[in-house]
Amino acid sequence: MDVVEFRPEREQYAWTFGGVAPVATVTPGTVLKLWTEDAFAGRIRSVDDLPTASLQMPDVNPQTGPFHVEGAEPGDTLAVHFVSIEPARDWAASSTIPFFGGLTGTDRTATLQEPLPERTWIYHLDRARGTVTFQPHGDGPSIDLPIDPMHGTVGVAPPAREVRSSLVPDTFGGNMDTPEMRAGVTCYLGVNVPGALFSIGDGHYRQGEGEACGTAVEGAMNTTLLVELIKSGANGARTPAWPRIESDDAIMVVGSARPLEDAWRASQVEMIDWLGELLGLDRLDAYELLTQIAECPLANVCDVNYSAVTKVAKSLLPPVRAFGGMHAYLREQAAGQR
Amino acid sequence: MDVVEFRPEREQYAWTFGGVAPVATVTPGTVLKLWTEDAFAGRIRSVDDLPTASLQMPDVNPQTGPFHVEGAEPGDTLAVHFVSIEPARDWAASSTIPFFGGLTGTDRTATLQEPLPERTWIYHLDRARGTVTFQPHGDGPSIDLPIDPMHGTVGVAPPAREVRSSLVPDTFGGNMDTPEMRAGVTCYLGVNVPGALFSIGDGHYRQGEGEACGTAVEGAMNTTLLVELIKSGANGARTPAWPRIESDDAIMVVGSARPLEDAWRASQVEMIDWLGELLGLDRLDAYELLTQIAECPLANVCDVNYSAVTKVAKSLLPPVRAFGGMHAYLREQAAGQR
Amino acid sequence: MDVVEFRPEREQYAWTFGGVAPVATVTPGTVLKLWTEDAFAGRIRSVDDLPTASLQMPDVNPQTGPFHVEGAEPGDTLAVHFVSIEPARDWAASSTIPFFGGLTGTDRTATLQEPLPERTWIYHLDRARGTVTFQPHGDGPSIDLPIDPMHGTVGVAPPAREVRSSLVPDTFGGNMDTPEMRAGVTCYLGVNVPGALFSIGDGHYRQGEGEACGTAVEGAMNTTLLVELIKSGANGARTPAWPRIESDDAIMVVGSARPLEDAWRASQVEMIDWLGELLGLDRLDAYELLTQIAECPLANVCDVNYSAVTKVAKSLLPPVRAFGGMHAYLREQAAGQR
Amino acid sequence: MDVVEFRPEREQYAWTFGGVAPVATVTPGTVLKLWTEDAFAGRIRSVDDLPTASLQMPDVNPQTGPFHVEGAEPGDTLAVHFVSIEPARDWAASSTIPFFGGLTGTDRTATLQEPLPERTWIYHLDRARGTVTFQPHGDGPSIDLPIDPMHGTVGVAPPAREVRSSLVPDTFGGNMDTPEMRAGVTCYLGVNVPGALFSIGDGHYRQGEGEACGTAVEGAMNTTLLVELIKSGANGARTPAWPRIESDDAIMVVGSARPLEDAWRASQVEMIDWLGELLGLDRLDAYELLTQIAECPLANVCDVNYSAVTKVAKSLLPPVRAFGGMHAYLREQAAGQR
Repeated sequence: MDVVEFRPEREQYAWTFGGVAPVATVTPGTVLKLWTEDAFAGRIRSVDDLPTASLQMPDVNPQTGPFHVEGAEPGDTLAVHFVSIEPARDWAASSTIPFFGGLTGTDRTATLQEPLPERTWIYHLDRARGTVTFQPHGDGPSIDLPIDPMHGTVGVAPPAREVRSSLVPDTFGGNMDTPEMRAGVTCYLGVNVPGALFSIGDGHYRQGEGEACGTAVEGAMNTTLLVELIKSGANGARTPAWPRIESDDAIMVVGSARPLEDAWRASQVEMIDWLGELLGLDRLDAYELLTQIAECPLANVCDVNYSAVTKVAKSLLPPVRAFGGMHAYLREQAAGQR
Repeated sequence: MDVVEFRPEREQYAWTFGGVAPVATVTPGTVLKLWTEDAFAGRIRSVDDLPTASLQMPDVNPQTGPFHVEGAEPGDTLAVHFVSIEPARDWAASSTIPFFGGLTGTDRTATLQEPLPERTWIYHLDRARGTVTFQPHGDGPSIDLPIDPMHGTVGVAPPAREVRSSLVPDTFGGNMDTPEMRAGVTCYLGVNVPGALFSIGDGHYRQGEGEACGTAVEGAMNTTLLVELIKSGANGARTPAWPRIESDDAIMVVGSARPLEDAWRASQVEMIDWLGELLGLDRLDAYELLTQIAECPLANVCDVNYSAVTKVAKSLLPPVRAFGGMHAYLREQAAGQR
Repeated sequence: MDVVEFRPEREQYAWTFGGVAPVATVTPGTVLKLWTEDAFAGRIRSVDDLPTASLQMPDVNPQTGPFHVEGAEPGDTLAVHFVSIEPARDWAASSTIPFFGGLTGTDRTATLQEPLPERTWIYHLDRARGTVTFQPHGDGPSIDLPIDPMHGTVGVAPPAREVRSSLVPDTFGGNMDTPEMRAGVTCYLGVNVPGALFSIGDGHYRQGEGEACGTAVEGAMNTTLLVELIKSGANGARTPAWPRIESDDAIMVVGSARPLEDAWRASQVEMIDWLGELLGLDRLDAYELLTQIAECPLANVCDVNYSAVTKVAKSLLPPVRAFGGMHAYLREQAAGQR
Repeated sequence: MDVVEFRPEREQYAWTFGGVAPVATVTPGTVLKLWTEDAFAGRIRSVDDLPTASLQMPDVNPQTGPFHVEGAEPGDTLAVHFVSIEPARDWAASSTIPFFGGLTGTDRTATLQEPLPERTWIYHLDRARGTVTFQPHGDGPSIDLPIDPMHGTVGVAPPAREVRSSLVPDTFGGNMDTPEMRAGVTCYLGVNVPGALFSIGDGHYRQGEGEACGTAVEGAMNTTLLVELIKSGANGARTPAWPRIESDDAIMVVGSARPLEDAWRASQVEMIDWLGELLGLDRLDAYELLTQIAECPLANVCDVNYSAVTKVAKSLLPPVRAFGGMHAYLREQAAGQR
């Protein structure tokens, strides 16, 4: 098994999906051991570092990549398996940013009110206990929270010649910001350009659903991936129109759009088609079934597009083999890498 | 402990929140043993009963109630504890309804496309195994699904002299359609009119989050409630602006609005204020904390307003005593009723 | 021609559509000479009267009515012709109200920001010149603006047993807040309850489209109406699903919903069906035609539902006779009343 | 005055804003005489040409350009004055496209309904009378409609390293699809990259507001532009955050976002700041004034972002000189070019 290690220098960060030359070419089956910087590009390091002064827009949410996957062509499906996601520092940061976030007016949800104050929280990591500590600025208790490391961003180059900021989630993945993107899952992404050109970033030591204030517990990560390629039509599987995630326990689709109901609708229709494919149901039967079994945990309600997850527990379904059993295969392969 | 049993005759159904004379007056602390008809008013009984032919609009989603709670005044908080929610029949039904549901054009999301076909699914209940069975019309497997009985609708009379259809969720509760409204939880509702005038209905033997097709596994229920009253300002608690739910494991807020992000925003701001009250945090610290710990499972994306839940696991918080420990008190009281 | 004059006493104001006993019964063809109070219920009378201190919620937007129209039954169409709308005072008022309006967070578009400051503007009317004067609080010029009197609110009792606040626009009309509701137009409303129970209010000496800050140039009005009834199916006309307006120059539909695109969609689909009826076009041809000829001036983007107008200039169409020529007939009848 | 004529060959079309090398460099003050292909890339030429068969996605909405404007730097403002916009063919086309348009489910407003039928309408131009003719496929009259030529698309390269499809409207302009972009107006766009890199396309012989079905009367154009540059801070003017338009009679802002209320909000806040700048009003006074004088004609409710226009008639304002009187200056310059 090929193993590629890569830690980008600052000048190697990718700030977009598409529009960037690959940092490496990898063959399907390769193990990637990557380091990712945090979404602040490492510029918020203490409670005194406030976004307006410290960040250098638009240089936020740096990505590690892109990687050119040999043989990947439009219509294929990329499978990115997260073997492990581990905090690379002993601290992480979160900030409120003026006119950014889910509970403030923004440049789009434009209001005339004053911005919320800027504030930075630093979370210290206790590796032994597996916790980060929330420390309020005002009154109230410090609270230890279990870490649950994940990547806010994973994506490929977009279709239709577009180049999108790494702040954007859409059909190509990108800044989906779902806590479901944790170690042990496989993310399936439709390929839009030769080589797929995928990258990852935006590690979160933990994140609530919705990512209300716009920033999670943002931290650098050491992440190990397994990359595989599913050629168009293999095993009769349809190319995902929206990013899909498979864990040992569930299958998921992430839709991204505004308003939020459209993110949800996109994820639901994609899941209905997936269920139809896996179970042989017609669309109306799959609609009915999904109505009774879906879990719908939100991902983000703060980004350029909002992201909603439709999730189905495998325990509620007969045994299914998505993409010819790719997830189980990658789990096995990964077992040797941990 | 007073016990009131009530099974409405067909002509006693309430079809609205507000605008209906109470069926009974109860004192705080009363146990209510209620029977509720299904959302179809019992008119869909076989796969051959299709909504257009069988339903008599607007006579859908009949409520059992309203009950006048002695002493309840505007500004007080009603606590409705669900002791048990049990299927009252051996079957339940679900249907697609033309131009109703989350994945179809509607009278508001008006499109020019043809409606989806009408179809009815009947779910048979296996009481011993605690399952209902999904039976597709076309190809594909029958699937047994564990029951998880809940009420789609619980609410009080609205403020501002309004009378709302039982299909509507809003600040007064109503047709929120969240699977979280299951046995063992306490629902807190702000009181808008003397006596509160609460009612419940719309039992679901189970429901996925989002209730995509617009109808869950709809069935009649035998439900036991405990009703309590929290006077304005008692224990320093603020009257809920939006319905709150407390379980043994979590505290929750249900926001209802369109677009869906507004339902979410309303539930988030209410939770931030609740966390502030429970933990002594200022609003910005509570915003930050919630960002890292919220669960956001959708309730409905098909009703007049969409409903989103913000949920916080108690295990992530220091010990909190909402409304002076009302939920724990009601759990104790309920123990004797099961 | 019967003439009914009515000026409500303060205790006779209606605060809702539905849920109120009629103040009078009128026969179709009656002339109504009405006085309407402003949306502030007359409580904002100087720049020192600020909403939080002066208003008595929910007693805002008082309506004059409702009137029971003899013979009106569900499925019929009420035609309300505005013969004249004349300022009843020499001044009018506008205010910013905390957490209300289009460019601020609200109870639904809930944010954590501080509210905008409260401020009241008083507009003095120069009857001879037909202007009101905008007077800034801070720097900048006073500006005389031509008056263009209109009613923000006209509606009938809602369907499905509902009672709605007079702040709400929906299928029954209500608080649509479109500047198109001026003298010389006929408003068509589907009847939901026996007698229709229509009322009007919320006079604006002028209003921009969108009513951004939530309050127009709010003033009491002396308004003369002609009321007619179109029985179900007369002249082959369909009962309006949404309020329609006809002027000498245009036909219009007002849709009300959230998000704003749904208000627009509802008004567009209704107009497509209206064009189909008037011109004999199939739906796809009417869709295409409307795409090239529609004007879409917004009404309000601040109320409980947002309202969007779809408008078609008669000059772009072959001669059409909506509702059997009702508007032309009412214009003739009105000529004798001015 | 420099005059540059340019008619792109098919292989010279630009399909994106950003990401394309300039076809020419021009100095401020240059006259550009351009030919633009229609949005179908000229592939729909008869009623038998249907989108699914005839279009080659994503090669739609070809742009003429981009042009590098000498001296343009980020923070400057580009002024593009439309001297004339003239139909380049004697016909134009419009089509319904499956799952595209305002009154159908789409990939985002994802529903399970069947798509609307595809249909193409060809409009014949009568140059002498200045009309195009709507010809229904089914019953009903042919209707001659006055032409009102305009460009759906005008824009510069986006900020933040992005490249966007020419189907997208946003802060950089792009596919705004407002009928206000007609001959005689000046469009002001903030510059994001050196040289601005602006292009135009998507000529419409006429278009209704909203562009409901997704395609206007689409036709090739001969268009003459005057290009000027306003250096950052010149005349104290702020760089536009959103595209602005000035005509002899009005000033306008185009906001683009989803949901539609956010497009409107963005355009309103930008207009409030513009009014503040022009009249010396504080923000709250400008909010109040705009509330009473705004016109809000929709642009598109079918594209990737929806676009809304906020328009203020100059006749309602004291004399204003936007950007130091640039529009009047360009009108004068243009007088010699017609």
